[in-house]
Amino acid sequence: MKKTILTGIKPTGQIHLGNYIGAIKPALALAQSDKFQPAYFIADFHGLTKIHDSKEFKQLSYGVAAAWLAFGLDPNKVIFYRQSDVPEIFELNWILSCFAPKGLMNRAHAYKALVDQNNQMGRDVDDGVNMGIFTYPILMAADILLFKTETVPVGKDQIQHVEIARDIAESFNHHYGETFVLPQYKVEEGTAILPGLDGRKMSKSYNNTIPVFAEPKRLQKLINKIKTDSLPPEASKDPSTSSLFTLYKEFATFAEVENMRTQYEAGIGWGEVKRELFEVMNRQLEEPRAKYNELIASPETLDEILLKGAERARAVSVPFLKEVRRKIGLSV
Amino acid sequence: MKKTILTGIKPTGQIHLGNYIGAIKPALALAQSDKFQPAYFIADFHGLTKIHDSKEFKQLSYGVAAAWLAFGLDPNKVIFYRQSDVPEIFELNWILSCFAPKGLMNRAHAYKALVDQNNQMGRDVDDGVNMGIFTYPILMAADILLFKTETVPVGKDQIQHVEIARDIAESFNHHYGETFVLPQYKVEEGTAILPGLDGRKMSKSYNNTIPVFAEPKRLQKLINKIKTDSLPPEASKDPSTSSLFTLYKEFATFAEVENMRTQYEAGIGWGEVKRELFEVMNRQLEEPRAKYNELIASPETLDEILLKGAERARAVSVPFLKEVRRKIGLSV
Repeated sequence: MKKTILTGIKPTGQIHLGNYIGAIKPALALAQSDKFQPAYFIADFHGLTKIHDSKEFKQLSYGVAAAWLAFGLDPNKVIFYRQSDVPEIFELNWILSCFAPKGLMNRAHAYKALVDQNNQMGRDVDDGVNMGIFTYPILMAADILLFKTETVPVGKDQIQHVEIARDIAESFNHHYGETFVLPQYKVEEGTAILPGLDGRKMSKSYNNTIPVFAEPKRLQKLINKIKTDSLPPEASKDPSTSSLFTLYKEFATFAEVENMRTQYEAGIGWGEVKRELFEVMNRQLEEPRAKYNELIASPETLDEILLKGAERARAVSVPFLKEVRRKIGLSV
Repeated sequence: MKKTILTGIKPTGQIHLGNYIGAIKPALALAQSDKFQPAYFIADFHGLTKIHDSKEFKQLSYGVAAAWLAFGLDPNKVIFYRQSDVPEIFELNWILSCFAPKGLMNRAHAYKALVDQNNQMGRDVDDGVNMGIFTYPILMAADILLFKTETVPVGKDQIQHVEIARDIAESFNHHYGETFVLPQYKVEEGTAILPGLDGRKMSKSYNNTIPVFAEPKRLQKLINKIKTDSLPPEASKDPSTSSLFTLYKEFATFAEVENMRTQYEAGIGWGEVKRELFEVMNRQLEEPRAKYNELIASPETLDEILLKGAERARAVSVPFLKEVRRKIGLSV
C-alpha cells in the first residue's frame, strides 16, 4: 500500500521562481515515486486569514492551480483538490479543537512572531491577529489527519505544524482508541534557495521576486535588474558569489553550466550573462507559460479538474469522518 | 415574514427542574407565538469541549432531545435539529474565524473566568483550556448567523455571545457587503430562578438539582431533602422565604397557590407541604416522564425526528452558505 504524502499550497501571491524551484519542482519529482500516493491541495481557505478581497482570492486560487498543472502535475496520479471543496475538513477542524490545548497555539511560531512584532511596536500583543491566524495550525492538523497522511514534506519552519498535528492526534487516540495515523515530517534538505533581484532569498515579503510566468520581454527586463558587482567585462568572476550563476544553474544543462563557469573565470560581461540566463530560463518556462495562459483563461477547465480531484479526496474523507464521528459518540 | 428565533441547548448534564422552568418552558411558550419561526437545536458539538466519553456524549444528546419533545415541542412548528447534522455550521465557523479579532476571544467572559481560576490556583493561565473552549463563541456565531437569526433569547450571562456574533457579522458585511443579518438578544427577565435542594439556585455546578424525570419515589425522596427551617408545624410561616413555596408556585394552579399561602399563615408542617408539592409536581411531570421514557427507549425515533429537522435547517443553511462562499470569492 502506498503511503499518503500531503502538501498544501497556500494561494497568497503570484507564483515566482523561488516557489517553482523550491517547492513545485521537488514536489512534482516526489510525485513520480511509486512509494507514495501524493495528495496536493490548494489551501484556499488558509488564504482567507489574510485575503479579504473576493476577486484576488479567486484569481490567486486559480493561479496556483494553473501553475501546478502547467508544470506537469498529473491529476490522474496526484489527488489534486481545493481545500474548500472538502467540507469534512472543517467539521474535523472543530473536533480537533476540542483536543488541542490552548497552550499549544500560544507557542506556535507564526503567532509568536506576530506577538513579538506587536511588542516591538508597543501595540497590544494581539493587534491585527484574527482567530483564523491564531487557530490555523488546527486547520492544518485537520488537513493532514483527515487523509491518514503518513508523510508531510516541510521546510524547517513548518516542522512544528506537523508536531502539533501529532499531539492532537495522540490526544484523540488516547481518549477513543487508535483512530488517526500519526504523521511524520520530512525535511527537504536538498532544495535550492533562489536569490531574488537584490541577492537576498527570493520571497514575496522582500518584494524581490521574478514571476514564473512573466512574458519574455518582462522576464528579460527583470533579469536585467538582478544586482551584480561593478567588475568590468574582462575581469575574472567568482561563480559561487553570483546570483546570476545560481539562477543559471537551475535552468541550464550540465554542459552549459560548465561552459558558463569557464566564461566566468575567463571574464564575461554581466550583460552577456543576463542574456544567456534569459535564454535558458525562457527555454524551460516557455511551454509551461503557454499552458498556464491557456488554463487561466479557462476557469471551467480548472474547476472540472479540481472537482474531480475533490471527489477522489472525499472518497477518503467522507467515510473516515463518519468513523471519527462514531468514535466520539455520534450515531448518524 | 416570521422572524427567526434561535436557541441552542448544550447537552452537558441530566435535565433538572431548573432547566425545565428556566429554559424549556419559556422557550416552548415563545414557540407558540405567530411572530416567530423558532429554531431550537441540540448543541452537541459544543458539548465536545468537555465531554470526551462517547457513551455519555450520545446519551446526553438523546436525553436533551427526548426532554424537549416530552414537554411538547412540536417538530412541525419548531425547526428542531442536532448541530452535528448540519455540516455547513463548521465551514462557516472557519470563515468567521478569519473575521474575529483574537482580542474579542481574550475578553470572552467564560474564558476570562477560567483564567482567573487558574491565576488564583497559581497555575498557567491557560491550564486545562482547550481550543474548543477558547473558540466556542465563534461556533456560536456560526450557529446564529447561518440561520439569519433575528432574535436570540438569552440569560444575562449570554448577552456577550450575541454581541460577538454581531461584531463578526459586521466585519464580514463591511468587507463583502450586506450578507449576515445582525442578531438581537432578548433577555428573558421574567423567568423564574428555581431554588435547589440547599436553597441556592438549582444548578448542576452546585450539585443540588432535582432531575425532571425522576421516578415518583425518587422525586418524593428528593423533595423531602429540600432544606427548611425548624419551625414547628403550628407556627405561621413566610411563603416568600420558603423554597418549597417557590417550587409549589411553579406547578400548582392559582387557587392551589392561594390556598397554600393561607395554610402557611395558619401554620402547616413542612412534611405536609412536601407531600402536597410532590402531588402537584408529579401531576405535571407524569405525562412528560412517560413520554420521555418512551422516546429515550427508541433512539431510532429520535434520530428520525432530528434528521427531518436537520433537513429543514439545511434547506436554509445550504443555499445561504453558497451565497457566503460566492461573496468571499469561491466559484463553486
